[in-house]
Amino acid sequence: MVMKVYGDGMSACVARVLLCLHEKETEFELVPVDLFACHHKLPSFLSMNPFGQVPVLQDEDLTLFESRAITAYIAEKHKDKGTDLTRHADAKEAAIVKLWSEVESHHFNPAISAVIHHLIVVPLQGKTPDAAIVEENLEKLGKVLDVYEEKLGKTKYLAGDSYTLADLHHVPYTYYFMKTGHAGLVNDRPNVKAWWEDLCSRPAFLKVSPGLTVAPATN
Amino acid sequence: MVMKVYGDGMSACVARVLLCLHEKETEFELVPVDLFACHHKLPSFLSMNPFGQVPVLQDEDLTLFESRAITAYIAEKHKDKGTDLTRHADAKEAAIVKLWSEVESHHFNPAISAVIHHLIVVPLQGKTPDAAIVEENLEKLGKVLDVYEEKLGKTKYLAGDSYTLADLHHVPYTYYFMKTGHAGLVNDRPNVKAWWEDLCSRPAFLKVSPGLTVAPATN
Repeated sequence: MVMKVYGDGMSACVARVLLCLHEKETEFELVPVDLFACHHKLPSFLSMNPFGQVPVLQDEDLTLFESRAITAYIAEKHKDKGTDLTRHADAKEAAIVKLWSEVESHHFNPAISAVIHHLIVVPLQGKTPDAAIVEENLEKLGKVLDVYEEKLGKTKYLAGDSYTLADLHHVPYTYYFMKTGHAGLVNDRPNVKAWWEDLCSRPAFLKVSPGLTVAPATN
Repeated sequence: MVMKVYGDGMSACVARVLLCLHEKETEFELVPVDLFACHHKLPSFLSMNPFGQVPVLQDEDLTLFESRAITAYIAEKHKDKGTDLTRHADAKEAAIVKLWSEVESHHFNPAISAVIHHLIVVPLQGKTPDAAIVEENLEKLGKVLDVYEEKLGKTKYLAGDSYTLADLHHVPYTYYFMKTGHAGLVNDRPNVKAWWEDLCSRPAFLKVSPGLTVAPATN
């Protein structure tokens, strides 16, 4: 039986998992969850993920949530298939992949997700974004991208010269971010810009990006 | 050569790594970094971690930062020694450990670290904590602990009936949190309280907790 992914491809966290499945050339079934009708808050969904968030992965008797736990599971299960996303054959290279994945989780994601929330999600809810929160997080994001700019001057990807989960995890939020008025944060840093253009050219990205359809605000 | 940990044991993120090293019964050297003198912002330190944060781990030619990447590396390197922190022998159990580690990173840590920052760090800097941020994050933390309360009614630890990294990663911030005036968030939830008391009784905790000496504010 193929793995089932519960969610909607417009969700950045669902897209993260779909990217991983395509990189691993793995068959899967996407089971739609209507987020606008709040079907992720129904008891049947909460029994799979008590936090009421997509995606959820079902692989036979295993139910997983948290997108980065799901990508790690898929990458490990299919480690010898498709793109080597974890550098599993060398413990030290694998540790460097984990390090930059943690940087995404604890430095990049908190800043960019706050910007996306206020510039894309809040306007969709008919509310006014908090400009001070946007500014504060753009500044934090810029500092993270300064570190990336230096690192990407030394290696082609964050964890070395191979594309890994450490890069992949950045893709969906960066895609949405580039549609806001602040794409300069990426484009003004030549190494980050080249990295982002490389990530956008991957076949897996070209399969997943058409699903990322949430419309950004114009500012 | 034994692993070197650069940091100060009063830092929650350093303590996370020290807990892991003790659970793994692994020798190490703690290399002091004077945080009050900002030695983690000196060029020599930034060459190890461009984000200027402790801890940093050095294991021969490998330099790592990000505490959770370090614990994953130590747990993997010494997987057959001391406590089995990753359930590595079973891919599905290992995935569940990863899942609850991600919950700590993306649900528990953002809320509790904001509370700790405003109730412990900000007063130390001679500034006034932002009461609205504290309230907002206590509410978020309460909702996370509601999920834990239910989970810990079914299994002894977060990822099953064994103590793993998913539990360990919670320890240092929870220790500091219990010294604020909001320990009721833990103590009023019987399963969370029993879990916390169990975590506090572990020999590794008893070795690390005396180093967690940052004084909390009284409110």
